[in-house]
Amino acid sequence: MRIVLDALGSDNCPDPEVQAALQAAHEFGDDILLVGPADLLRDKLEALNGTTAKVQIVNAPEAITMEDKGIKLALKAKRREAKNSMAVGIDLVKSGEADAFVTAGNTGGALATGYYRLGLIPGLERPALTALFPVKDGHTVVLDIGANPECKPEHLYQFAIMGSIYAQKVLQIDDPRLGLLSNGEEAGKGNQLIKETFPLLEASELNFIGNVEGKELFGGEADVVVMDGFTGNILLKSSEAVAKLLIDSLREELMSSFRTKVGAALAKPAFGVIRKMLDPAEVGAAPLLGINGLVFIGHGRSDAYALVSAIRNARKAVEAKLLNAIQEAIEDQLAQAALPGES
Amino acid sequence: MRIVLDALGSDNCPDPEVQAALQAAHEFGDDILLVGPADLLRDKLEALNGTTAKVQIVNAPEAITMEDKGIKLALKAKRREAKNSMAVGIDLVKSGEADAFVTAGNTGGALATGYYRLGLIPGLERPALTALFPVKDGHTVVLDIGANPECKPEHLYQFAIMGSIYAQKVLQIDDPRLGLLSNGEEAGKGNQLIKETFPLLEASELNFIGNVEGKELFGGEADVVVMDGFTGNILLKSSEAVAKLLIDSLREELMSSFRTKVGAALAKPAFGVIRKMLDPAEVGAAPLLGINGLVFIGHGRSDAYALVSAIRNARKAVEAKLLNAIQEAIEDQLAQAALPGES
Repeated sequence: MRIVLDALGSDNCPDPEVQAALQAAHEFGDDILLVGPADLLRDKLEALNGTTAKVQIVNAPEAITMEDKGIKLALKAKRREAKNSMAVGIDLVKSGEADAFVTAGNTGGALATGYYRLGLIPGLERPALTALFPVKDGHTVVLDIGANPECKPEHLYQFAIMGSIYAQKVLQIDDPRLGLLSNGEEAGKGNQLIKETFPLLEASELNFIGNVEGKELFGGEADVVVMDGFTGNILLKSSEAVAKLLIDSLREELMSSFRTKVGAALAKPAFGVIRKMLDPAEVGAAPLLGINGLVFIGHGRSDAYALVSAIRNARKAVEAKLLNAIQEAIEDQLAQAALPGES
Repeated sequence: MRIVLDALGSDNCPDPEVQAALQAAHEFGDDILLVGPADLLRDKLEALNGTTAKVQIVNAPEAITMEDKGIKLALKAKRREAKNSMAVGIDLVKSGEADAFVTAGNTGGALATGYYRLGLIPGLERPALTALFPVKDGHTVVLDIGANPECKPEHLYQFAIMGSIYAQKVLQIDDPRLGLLSNGEEAGKGNQLIKETFPLLEASELNFIGNVEGKELFGGEADVVVMDGFTGNILLKSSEAVAKLLIDSLREELMSSFRTKVGAALAKPAFGVIRKMLDPAEVGAAPLLGINGLVFIGHGRSDAYALVSAIRNARKAVEAKLLNAIQEAIEDQLAQAALPGES
């Protein structure tokens, strides 16, 4: 197996990436293709005494950064002769020289580059950004978290198919429970999009448990939850912001007196569980579903340990033949939709 | 001033309501009209030695409960001869016998009852459910959190006017900063609704600071944030669920060993700040904006202390002539919209 790692992804790149490439090559025995400025990466590897045949450097002198947006980003993602690490790395997946691409960089950049260079799975209407949300006793697959601010019911249906297959094949959840995010659990609740999506999911072969609200989502009552990308993005960012507000407020109070400081020191192991819940390393990376190739996006805050987790996720998807499984499921869906009298 | 308190609102009603009515009458020197089953309320008041001329019981033998939904709820809210405490209480506001109605009961019930019995402010297209979100260093007015799952740009514009006036008149924030919740801060970000609402807010006389995300909202960077009711409801419920997940997980871990238990005991004052942030009493109650009368809705978990806070909020709105201010602002908006060449 050959995994491409974007050396210019994480907030502190390329050091975490160089370290992660070495660790992953060692741990998994795979080839890691590290994409970025060749000279710099060679120096970094040598400094770590890490010149191993298992980590191959692929030169890409440029980067897509967090500042790249709009047309500038589209051009960087699209140009045939693009020399940024995402374009070069994703081209390796396209040519079959590698099995999956992993980055902790600009999410919109990875989406655009994957979309333009690999295209969509045939029959699929929209790609979806996926996230693994920390919930009670585990994680829940949530999509779309931002690729499509405007969605149709058929898009959400296809997200549901892809998310369910990902949960089944890669997270190894039998018959994953699927929820539709809405402003009420009852079947009639929701905006127009939800009301029209509900019957599609109900008529499908997916394990649809109905509408879910925040309580069910964070309570871990569904394995996969679908929504449009506008709602998903607000859900993701607000959840992060609430968690940050609570933790910051608690930290500030704990440090405000000697007594609470001592208490905090004694209680430290308990705070670990919160840190772990919000740690990028626990999630590793989530796939960009619908793109005709495996692209995994990790958190910008990823360190080497988190990047190794990200590579581990990508490996599982390759081993589980995730892409084939989604391709087949979309073919099935289209074939069924074409049958007369079926709905 | 005369405030109506729904005696059949909170999860533990009517005891917190009876206590709150007495406390509020004492604290504010106002008449409190306590609406519910007269015999029961009289007994409860007497048991508290609380027979004061300041607390007047108004008989309403029935209640709108959390189980009331759909058509059943609409009928209870609408019927002229309705005998439930919300209908009877809101009729007192309609007839001018009272200045404001306060309940900690079914939000949808208060919305429907207010809407059917008081109607909308002339020229206003949709009422909005409002919440005060705990944010860094204070609270932010958020609307709509669920009255309108489907909104048009003009609705969000009117929500922005109403929310800004509420922040200014009742929360006494000069020139409140207004944000539009979106999936990105840049002006071009958002779904169709956001893209069309942005220029309306920008051209208005409101202090529009642009699109905001979860980070800005919970960071306290806006005083008022508007959104459609579907998104707002998901934002509200997910935020509550994330907070609950974090607190439950932390509590569980703190109780898991002797050492962390001791730490938790010492650090207890620090946890108070979190409890306070999420405490209904800190917020009291938020208004139903757009209804042609003052209706305040508190959290179902409200105790007597929280209900007194709710009554305090309602009093401030009466004193600030909130309803008149919104009526005038909507008139102004319509007059401006009618001017040729203006937009």
